[in-house]
Amino acid sequence: MSLTEFEIIKQYFTRQPRYASVVESVGNDCATVSLEPNKQLTMSMDTLVAGRHFPFDATPEQIATRALCTSLSDLAAMGATPLWFTLGLTLPNADEDWLRSFSHGLFYVADQFNIDLIGGDTTQGPLTITVQVHGEVEMGQGLKRSAAAVGDAIFVTGTLGDGAAALDLLVNKSSQREYDNINHSVLKYLTDRFYCPMPQIEAGQLIAPFASSAIDISDGLLADASHIAESSNVQLAIDIDCLPIAPVLIQSPNLFSQECLSSWALSGGDDYQLLFTVGQEKLKELKRLIDENLVQACCIGQVVEGSGVSLFLDGVPYNTDSSANDYKGYQHFAS
Amino acid sequence: MSLTEFEIIKQYFTRQPRYASVVESVGNDCATVSLEPNKQLTMSMDTLVAGRHFPFDATPEQIATRALCTSLSDLAAMGATPLWFTLGLTLPNADEDWLRSFSHGLFYVADQFNIDLIGGDTTQGPLTITVQVHGEVEMGQGLKRSAAAVGDAIFVTGTLGDGAAALDLLVNKSSQREYDNINHSVLKYLTDRFYCPMPQIEAGQLIAPFASSAIDISDGLLADASHIAESSNVQLAIDIDCLPIAPVLIQSPNLFSQECLSSWALSGGDDYQLLFTVGQEKLKELKRLIDENLVQACCIGQVVEGSGVSLFLDGVPYNTDSSANDYKGYQHFAS
Repeated sequence: MSLTEFEIIKQYFTRQPRYASVVESVGNDCATVSLEPNKQLTMSMDTLVAGRHFPFDATPEQIATRALCTSLSDLAAMGATPLWFTLGLTLPNADEDWLRSFSHGLFYVADQFNIDLIGGDTTQGPLTITVQVHGEVEMGQGLKRSAAAVGDAIFVTGTLGDGAAALDLLVNKSSQREYDNINHSVLKYLTDRFYCPMPQIEAGQLIAPFASSAIDISDGLLADASHIAESSNVQLAIDIDCLPIAPVLIQSPNLFSQECLSSWALSGGDDYQLLFTVGQEKLKELKRLIDENLVQACCIGQVVEGSGVSLFLDGVPYNTDSSANDYKGYQHFAS
Repeated sequence: MSLTEFEIIKQYFTRQPRYASVVESVGNDCATVSLEPNKQLTMSMDTLVAGRHFPFDATPEQIATRALCTSLSDLAAMGATPLWFTLGLTLPNADEDWLRSFSHGLFYVADQFNIDLIGGDTTQGPLTITVQVHGEVEMGQGLKRSAAAVGDAIFVTGTLGDGAAALDLLVNKSSQREYDNINHSVLKYLTDRFYCPMPQIEAGQLIAPFASSAIDISDGLLADASHIAESSNVQLAIDIDCLPIAPVLIQSPNLFSQECLSSWALSGGDDYQLLFTVGQEKLKELKRLIDENLVQACCIGQVVEGSGVSLFLDGVPYNTDSSANDYKGYQHFAS
């Protein structure tokens, strides 16, 4: 515990900003930035608590990449271009190895997404990481939850259920029996998905001009779909048999049952993929992006009249009286 | 623990924004705001940890007012106009009485300074509060630490040492012997100063057009003066006999010795007053503000050639070989 707060900031968190928009950066009372004309600023704050949002045995680098990736996912859901972030770092002690590894992970992600760390606070206490990300959108062009319309097709990017599968394997370790025999590629895939869930920034920007609504799947598909349904005053009808599940998981029946995978894809959370809707007249534009491998997304249903979320399996209503409409996603304070 | 995260946000932290600049607010993936032309955005994040930045027996309302006031103090140091804030609230459990009291304190300060809560995150964990405040300054007009010039006079607003005296009385309770006999007005004064340290927003805005540098005194006068000295490549010569100490404390010698009060005024921290410098040719402008009771400030020294901070008592150099230049202020990670 030899480093002071100022030394920690100077040594591990001070870099030359890449953007001319950054007037004052790390180490001042305030960060000061300028915004281009005709842009709006969009921002999101997320807090990760040790033992709750990541296991105590996560490496500092993993904690950092997870913190920044999950925050950036909120910007992806707006179709925003990430610019800057601030970091509130609460640490039990100023361990230099820890700080070196943490800052390495942090700037690894920052470099991938071209964002500057412009300020924050470093305090002593139980390990907690708060990140606020800031991005820009064209004036009035940010993606919203509130404009899904009846007839729109529903899409998700990437695959679903990875977050919950990772949680099961890495955190809950409920499959401890088989842990030693896990296929290396499954373990690596899920570790990456949990600690470095790549925010769908590029996909968000590409669909922003024509998608009618979007949200990132952090609380689980059903919960996040219900947010769009509520904001847009529509019902989202989802085909369970269309949910995209990672082949590497399907091919590991000794680890994950088909039932588990479906359930996780529906309600597991922590996937950080985009759920979005597209009007029929705009589907060609999306198809072009998918065909050109610029966006990886698949159709999972359709927006209909009504409210909430309805599920279908092989075209037949599925379990509509129970979990679907009531499902609220991951609950921090559920008893 | 019956409330979910969404219910907490909806019930206690959702209000109609007062600013048209707030396009999307609490409850969305991101908060989205617009900035007026020719303005720069200035922002500061602060984290308060239970048992470290406030005692465990602080009321939720006191925690909230302290969190928001201390964050706003950073905007005051820029001469900024506060606009919006975000809140990262980590709570052991969702106690409704706690939340009601906390949100009451939060919006009490928010209303005083006309700022909107536009987003944040609510998680379960050890009690920790992170606030990020956002304000605007005219393009290029924000107060800086780096432009103090030789010959400038040095000023502070309000009184110094209150934060440390409050800490001694309320938190450390080192005066427990006399605690029951404390003059009620002293107790109230220090409780207010600790839990509701009014950020010098108006003073910051009024001095911004002519002050050459400014900083808020959070780490202690010596530490914060040394930040200005370092950033401006000058020395700050401070007259100890000019330090403004609250009369109510001076008049309580049974509680606080003169030695303690002087020491706290120099290095106690947690005062959230402004330390600023003014060129000789601009002193008339400041005098007018002081005479009209618009700014409460007094001169405590002068900017000279050199580096660091030097102290004088009755015109004689004081203790220059020890604490002054080396003093680093409140150290979070000091062993």
